[in-house]
Amino acid sequence: MTLINHKFLLAARPVGMPKRSDWTFTEEPVAEPKEGELLVRVLYISLDPAMRMWINESRSYIPPVGIGEVMRALGVGMVAASRHPHFTAGDHVSGSFGVQEYALADGRRVTNVDTRVVPLPKYLSVFGMPGMTAYFGLLDTGQPKSGETVVVSAAAGAVGGLVGQIAKIKNCRVVGIAGGAEKCRYMITELGFDAAIDYKSEDVKQSVRKHCPEGLNVYFDNVGGAILEAALANLARGARIVICGAICQYNNTGPMTGPSNYMSLLSNRATMKGMLVLDYIDRYAQAATEMAAWMAAGTLKSREHIVDGLATFPETLLMLFKSENWGKLILKVD
Amino acid sequence: MTLINHKFLLAARPVGMPKRSDWTFTEEPVAEPKEGELLVRVLYISLDPAMRMWINESRSYIPPVGIGEVMRALGVGMVAASRHPHFTAGDHVSGSFGVQEYALADGRRVTNVDTRVVPLPKYLSVFGMPGMTAYFGLLDTGQPKSGETVVVSAAAGAVGGLVGQIAKIKNCRVVGIAGGAEKCRYMITELGFDAAIDYKSEDVKQSVRKHCPEGLNVYFDNVGGAILEAALANLARGARIVICGAICQYNNTGPMTGPSNYMSLLSNRATMKGMLVLDYIDRYAQAATEMAAWMAAGTLKSREHIVDGLATFPETLLMLFKSENWGKLILKVD
Repeated sequence: MTLINHKFLLAARPVGMPKRSDWTFTEEPVAEPKEGELLVRVLYISLDPAMRMWINESRSYIPPVGIGEVMRALGVGMVAASRHPHFTAGDHVSGSFGVQEYALADGRRVTNVDTRVVPLPKYLSVFGMPGMTAYFGLLDTGQPKSGETVVVSAAAGAVGGLVGQIAKIKNCRVVGIAGGAEKCRYMITELGFDAAIDYKSEDVKQSVRKHCPEGLNVYFDNVGGAILEAALANLARGARIVICGAICQYNNTGPMTGPSNYMSLLSNRATMKGMLVLDYIDRYAQAATEMAAWMAAGTLKSREHIVDGLATFPETLLMLFKSENWGKLILKVD
Repeated sequence: MTLINHKFLLAARPVGMPKRSDWTFTEEPVAEPKEGELLVRVLYISLDPAMRMWINESRSYIPPVGIGEVMRALGVGMVAASRHPHFTAGDHVSGSFGVQEYALADGRRVTNVDTRVVPLPKYLSVFGMPGMTAYFGLLDTGQPKSGETVVVSAAAGAVGGLVGQIAKIKNCRVVGIAGGAEKCRYMITELGFDAAIDYKSEDVKQSVRKHCPEGLNVYFDNVGGAILEAALANLARGARIVICGAICQYNNTGPMTGPSNYMSLLSNRATMKGMLVLDYIDRYAQAATEMAAWMAAGTLKSREHIVDGLATFPETLLMLFKSENWGKLILKVD
């Protein structure tokens, strides 16, 4: 019996929000792994804001996905067949497998994961890129100190939810910004944040001022735009802004806009610093160990938002940009 | 004989470039110093880009100058009379004396200076705020390492010229950005920079790329706007941007604009940090000692651009915003 691989190829460079016509959903017989290769049956696919950047023509930190290529995506799955010495059929693995059902890999950057420790999807959230981004972005780049005030945007999302909880573990006051009253309740009651701001119904600049009367010490930015400006308008002396993403600008059809009040960095002797999780690969194990202990202690929760069906990829991806996901957005392959 | 003090008061908050009608030039008899006060005859007045910010309504790092108040300015002069135990008539002093001929002071933040070491105006340039700004902004905030490439804007100005020379002393490659061919020649032949970019005749982004083929490591920003964007477009991994000023935006009648490509901080894991020289007061003496040694060795030159006549203040100030000054702009009181 020949296996069939269904996959999404990039058909066109999207203008604004990616449409279904920007993708080609196609199929082909699955090839046998060659010597040194392994075949992975992909079970869960990570949907990330950064995907929108990967399909722009311009290079950022990695080359763009080419037209006609399988869409790049992180994923977890099970080894279906292996001619690679380090992997055996039945192993669970994570890697950059693309938006497809089966992936051939040469074993580089493929990692074994243990489903006896945590369920497979968590290797795409707290024990995957979002978890590592939150951990190192907050602790290494943000450098929060006990008693300081940490503000985080997209705070009900995969990274933001973890950032706020880790800041609480480090004895900070935490103010989360997200869209909608329900997400605000979630941040307070489930995640334990001290305050929540609904950017859909509040004047964010005023609300940050209200919740940070002495200014904020760390702002973890996932969104850019007006919310970044609201944070810049409320810095404490020596504040640190972690630039992790700018999701509100990724689907701009015009040029991106920068924060008009960036000179607040000067009056407040503040720092704005970009971070990329790839720089911390050597320390992932350390972070995972510490976060596992926090989860065991009940102080860190991770929430996965799992949507069924590879075929829904074009529409499910857009949930990220419409603020419709709660926690880590993951596509479950049927 | 009663002494008469001529002085400039702020008459209105300027819109765009300050006009003569935004000031009141007036006179009054000089008051006698009271117990604990000293009277300073102001000899040289420092004209600085920051003055434009001090007359806006909004508070930045210090409160704005009020309507009807003497315009704030740093200056140097001679003590005319003293009832303060630490100062004697005939002493040379520096302080924030305002745009006027005579200033009463209570002695706080007034410093004795020694004209046998260097001429009085140098206490407003290399041994004053611009020198300290250049020294700490570059070395402490920019952290240049030997062999790195340092780019500086307003590089023929008071701060920029010193920044570039100090970077050369620290074995960096230096690229200066200034307006006009003559200033470019000056940066190469007089200041010893490795390359010069004329923002009036060149595409700055392209020229920075040409002179920094592997990206820049430190960018010292005095200007903001398109030149800041040109720098952001050419960062090396781990680059540091020192935010010292944004002179090209100070006379905007609309809102300031932020750098649209600030996400380059993320792809290049770069830092943008604001600095204010006031934070380094405790270390001024250390910086002055080191810079005096560099001047004695001939590796550091400071240039003062001295304009005669207190009455010319409104027009002379505008030279800063028209890029007409060479080195530190100083008003000489007649």
